Amino acid sequence: MIGKQTWIIPDGFLQPKSTGEQISHEAVCVLNLTDGPADIHLTLYFEDREPMDQFFSECGSNRTHHIRLDKIKDREGNEIPRGVPYAIKVESNVPIIVQHSRLDTSQEALALFTTMGYPAH
Amino acid sequence: MIGKQTWIIPDGFLQPKSTGEQISHEAVCVLNLTDGPADIHLTLYFEDREPMDQFFSECGSNRTHHIRLDKIKDREGNEIPRGVPYAIKVESNVPIIVQHSRLDTSQEALALFTTMGYPAH
Amino acid sequence: MIGKQTWIIPDGFLQPKSTGEQISHEAVCVLNLTDGPADIHLTLYFEDREPMDQFFSECGSNRTHHIRLDKIKDREGNEIPRGVPYAIKVESNVPIIVQHSRLDTSQEALALFTTMGYPAH
Amino acid sequence: MIGKQTWIIPDGFLQPKSTGEQISHEAVCVLNLTDGPADIHLTLYFEDREPMDQFFSECGSNRTHHIRLDKIKDREGNEIPRGVPYAIKVESNVPIIVQHSRLDTSQEALALFTTMGYPAH
Repeated sequence: MIGKQTWIIPDGFLQPKSTGEQISHEAVCVLNLTDGPADIHLTLYFEDREPMDQFFSECGSNRTHHIRLDKIKDREGNEIPRGVPYAIKVESNVPIIVQHSRLDTSQEALALFTTMGYPAH
Repeated sequence: MIGKQTWIIPDGFLQPKSTGEQISHEAVCVLNLTDGPADIHLTLYFEDREPMDQFFSECGSNRTHHIRLDKIKDREGNEIPRGVPYAIKVESNVPIIVQHSRLDTSQEALALFTTMGYPAH
Repeated sequence: MIGKQTWIIPDGFLQPKSTGEQISHEAVCVLNLTDGPADIHLTLYFEDREPMDQFFSECGSNRTHHIRLDKIKDREGNEIPRGVPYAIKVESNVPIIVQHSRLDTSQEALALFTTMGYPAH
Repeated sequence: MIGKQTWIIPDGFLQPKSTGEQISHEAVCVLNLTDGPADIHLTLYFEDREPMDQFFSECGSNRTHHIRLDKIKDREGNEIPRGVPYAIKVESNVPIIVQHSRLDTSQEALALFTTMGYPAH
């Protein structure tokens, strides 16, 4: 079974500013190579407040899901705040593979970064 | 023997827009340090459709191959669609090392990102 | 316990030049998923001078800390010099997860890069 | 002893074009945490020609060295060609940690990317 059930991404940041046609955003990119659906639980950690732990998503068998962190809402309808440093724990009921990417259009022209998540369990 | 036979890249995206002289693209960069040729099989996974699993490439012994994902065609002549999130499984008959990079020129000036693939087997 | 107590980042560089509203900088992004606070010790290595080993920081339980390397001062009030290649060792009394990112605004528009640190112990 | 003696970087490319004040380049960033000097041997692999295997460098004890790949010359005075895809094997007589970064100024504003090398042995 390829992948892990827990992944960590320490550098999360939703750039508040955007220019041009593309909005600044981040995505948690998941691939599920198991035979069943992946139920995904995201916990967000901050520098100076309690974690937000009611974000859920999913990814079908043999599907990818590029979870947009600027669009996801938790069970109470809260969004991830922009302009605040955070970190992400991604947990799944089945093994998945996780990569994290950022698009930043805060100054003219855009900037991108990416890294594989840290595979914990 | 250096490397693995299966690598995963969750964040694939061929930016549809380009500006300037360079076209937006991605590459799966392979190094083969074994004594024989590497036969490489790419499977593409999507968010809402069946995988495309008829992409093949190769890399000679002690050679690198930067496989351009905007140019590769599968056995039926299909290209990877632009503007659609996807994920990649790279399989080889011999151990290889895999890195994935993106060039994005959708806004003036270009953006780059890269990461080592996730070594699965 | 998720993470490691020692992490390595070979490519550190504080770009001396900035344009636009955002200053060029780097951050060591830490997540602490243990039950207690993390005491963090940063050692900076250079190409042609002795290491600087008196930088300290912290990260609370279930908190992240994006340690700004352009702002941190060591016990004698020294900052990390700009425009000089360096490398970073991050040590903690409890397991943490470490990612390193750079923002460069030296030319118009900004550039970003990131990678997970190398987990040593 | 922190690190490995062999590291792999599949995606090498020296962008031929530069704009602004900074020249497009790549660097292999090394940290040596052992008690003695690191003798470093770089082998470059190409898509359609024999490897170049006479590049040597070094990194002192408790020092970093950001080896500029656009400046290094092999024993016969050859430079790494620009505009050609290549891959890199980094070997050292002692364990080191290796990160690879690219600066691209081919279009206005610059782009950066980085990744940890793949630790082989």
